[in-house]
Amino acid sequence: MADPNSLPLSRASVLSAHTLIKPYIHRTPVLTSTYISQLASTPRTAAELEGTPWAGQTPASPKIRFWFKCENFQKVGAFKARGAFHALLRLVESEGWEEGGGRERGVVTHSSGNHAQAVSLASATLKIPSHIVMPRISTPAKIAATQSYGASVLFSGSTAPEREAVVADVIKDTGATLIPPYDHPHVMLGQGTAGLELQEQVLEAQKEVEVGMGRKGLNAIIAPCGGGGLLSGTALSAQGTGIVVFGAEPEFEGADDCKRGLEAGKRIEVVKSLTIGDGLRTPVGVWPWKVISDKKLVRGVYSVTEEQIKATLRLVLERMKVVVEPSSVVGLAVALWNEDFRRVVEAEQGGEEWDLGVVFTGGNVNLEGLGKLFEAK
Amino acid sequence: MADPNSLPLSRASVLSAHTLIKPYIHRTPVLTSTYISQLASTPRTAAELEGTPWAGQTPASPKIRFWFKCENFQKVGAFKARGAFHALLRLVESEGWEEGGGRERGVVTHSSGNHAQAVSLASATLKIPSHIVMPRISTPAKIAATQSYGASVLFSGSTAPEREAVVADVIKDTGATLIPPYDHPHVMLGQGTAGLELQEQVLEAQKEVEVGMGRKGLNAIIAPCGGGGLLSGTALSAQGTGIVVFGAEPEFEGADDCKRGLEAGKRIEVVKSLTIGDGLRTPVGVWPWKVISDKKLVRGVYSVTEEQIKATLRLVLERMKVVVEPSSVVGLAVALWNEDFRRVVEAEQGGEEWDLGVVFTGGNVNLEGLGKLFEAK
Repeated sequence: MADPNSLPLSRASVLSAHTLIKPYIHRTPVLTSTYISQLASTPRTAAELEGTPWAGQTPASPKIRFWFKCENFQKVGAFKARGAFHALLRLVESEGWEEGGGRERGVVTHSSGNHAQAVSLASATLKIPSHIVMPRISTPAKIAATQSYGASVLFSGSTAPEREAVVADVIKDTGATLIPPYDHPHVMLGQGTAGLELQEQVLEAQKEVEVGMGRKGLNAIIAPCGGGGLLSGTALSAQGTGIVVFGAEPEFEGADDCKRGLEAGKRIEVVKSLTIGDGLRTPVGVWPWKVISDKKLVRGVYSVTEEQIKATLRLVLERMKVVVEPSSVVGLAVALWNEDFRRVVEAEQGGEEWDLGVVFTGGNVNLEGLGKLFEAK
Repeated sequence: MADPNSLPLSRASVLSAHTLIKPYIHRTPVLTSTYISQLASTPRTAAELEGTPWAGQTPASPKIRFWFKCENFQKVGAFKARGAFHALLRLVESEGWEEGGGRERGVVTHSSGNHAQAVSLASATLKIPSHIVMPRISTPAKIAATQSYGASVLFSGSTAPEREAVVADVIKDTGATLIPPYDHPHVMLGQGTAGLELQEQVLEAQKEVEVGMGRKGLNAIIAPCGGGGLLSGTALSAQGTGIVVFGAEPEFEGADDCKRGLEAGKRIEVVKSLTIGDGLRTPVGVWPWKVISDKKLVRGVYSVTEEQIKATLRLVLERMKVVVEPSSVVGLAVALWNEDFRRVVEAEQGGEEWDLGVVFTGGNVNLEGLGKLFEAK
């Protein structure tokens, strides 16, 4: 990767990233849902709170209008295309890279998911050879999709050390440059462009429907947090705008490492969770942590259960008729079911409805897996 | 229902229907897919044709650009909202209806699916009481959705005579007016507005992207055919425009009654099929048949297998990331897999790419059913 210090972690750098990657990515649509906004604006019942940490308490009563940034319609079906294009474009423009034979040596990464396809597409588009290390247990569809963009796929075991060993071999053999999935400012700034577009698009939509109503864009954005690339980038995209940024995680088997890390004041380095939000199983990276642990940039991180993720997924599939992967809906799940979050919204909004942006991160579902999730009891 | 002869079966009547229902329905988006258009424009291989009626023959080589009219995003999740609103609005404006106590007597229909929800919504919107007869075996989700719009739901057995007996009882008790799901010109003309919008939207999109390229809108539209309301309405919407209209059916257990009827020169009156295209299990109605059997209005009807419907459904869910029900993709399946249809396109297009409109009819999937369809072997 190019020098991580070449760009400051700031909104200006997200704007600059956007200018650079715009020709290569989709400006994905922003959808709304009256039904789901009404659901979020209806207090949970006592019965619904039973068995939760908020049992017996007065339900929160926030007023929320959602704006869904649909990165499931992005190239490769996920926001990861943004970070990959940005990282590679910065590499291409970095001093001495072309002359030093950087292009011939190519790039390498390890990923079982959307980052693999994103690097494969971005490198093929920019005519850079790429090597993607995937766990041997990846689904055939994911492997085929990664290969279809042009990458050479290598296989490894599933643990981090096993994957890293294969990557190290590739680098030794080819001199390829590593493109990490989230732990680099260029990747984070690329992902942040989704938050930037969301802000612009809500302003445009409000102008269309409510001329003269004095609408001022989003009040807040909530984004899922796995390695933290998207959440940190989104936070930077909102820096200085007054828009409050929140993170969302699954709580299953400790996947809420970011939340726990913030409570402990220290980044948690290892996570072993098999949450259905499979894009969110990794711990927050060192670089994203610098942003996320800054209270001025990320107000708070909240978590939800597997059942809440599943119920929210059903809602989006059945009501909005868009295909999203389970990781995608974790932000929406927090807004619907996490009473701590809902109280913060209620307290901050002072009776005024909040315009809340939600990033749907991707739509690469495995239909067999989805089938199993919703199989009849 | 209002007098079926009050409006001629013509494009002008579809335009008039559109003016009437526009305030009540969504102008649903039209999507494209480079990947799926390329797939349709690639000849099938000899291996793919093995085991089909076209084994050993030269594969067809049509050039197709798809435009998908997404009625899965329509109110109640299906095009049926169009016909229901049109039928009820014509009823309301029919002479003597209000004065004669028509409103108090309300409306009634029988449906296990989208028509039930459509009549429930339209009647609630227009403040007319409605009674919906649903088979006892309907999924709880469908029953709840129908009730949620405000209808009073009654239950019956699953066969046509059982359902009709309950409807007859309702009419005897309340004097309610029957709103049939497809067999009435007002319903057909309402459904045809989807075809009309599709034509307009393609012209608009072509204007945006290809100024001066001399694009002239759609060459053809293909729509699924169950009772024939949508296909006949779509055919009328294209009357006199030069746009060729085709129908599509599942072939499973004789669900291709329209195709067979056209071959025999006589409408087939009874169908007993459990095709996964569950919106297409009914025979074509008497009124739709008048239109569909007119070769000038509908060029031909083609059928596909259950496996082809399933493969197409997977393609739409995985590639386009939109949720559609199996019935929705039967037109696209024909364009991808039916060599008779593909040859007709190739022959008619004379080397020029065709712009082919495809109506995605609805998105009301049962996730449990979808899960079963795609469960891992």
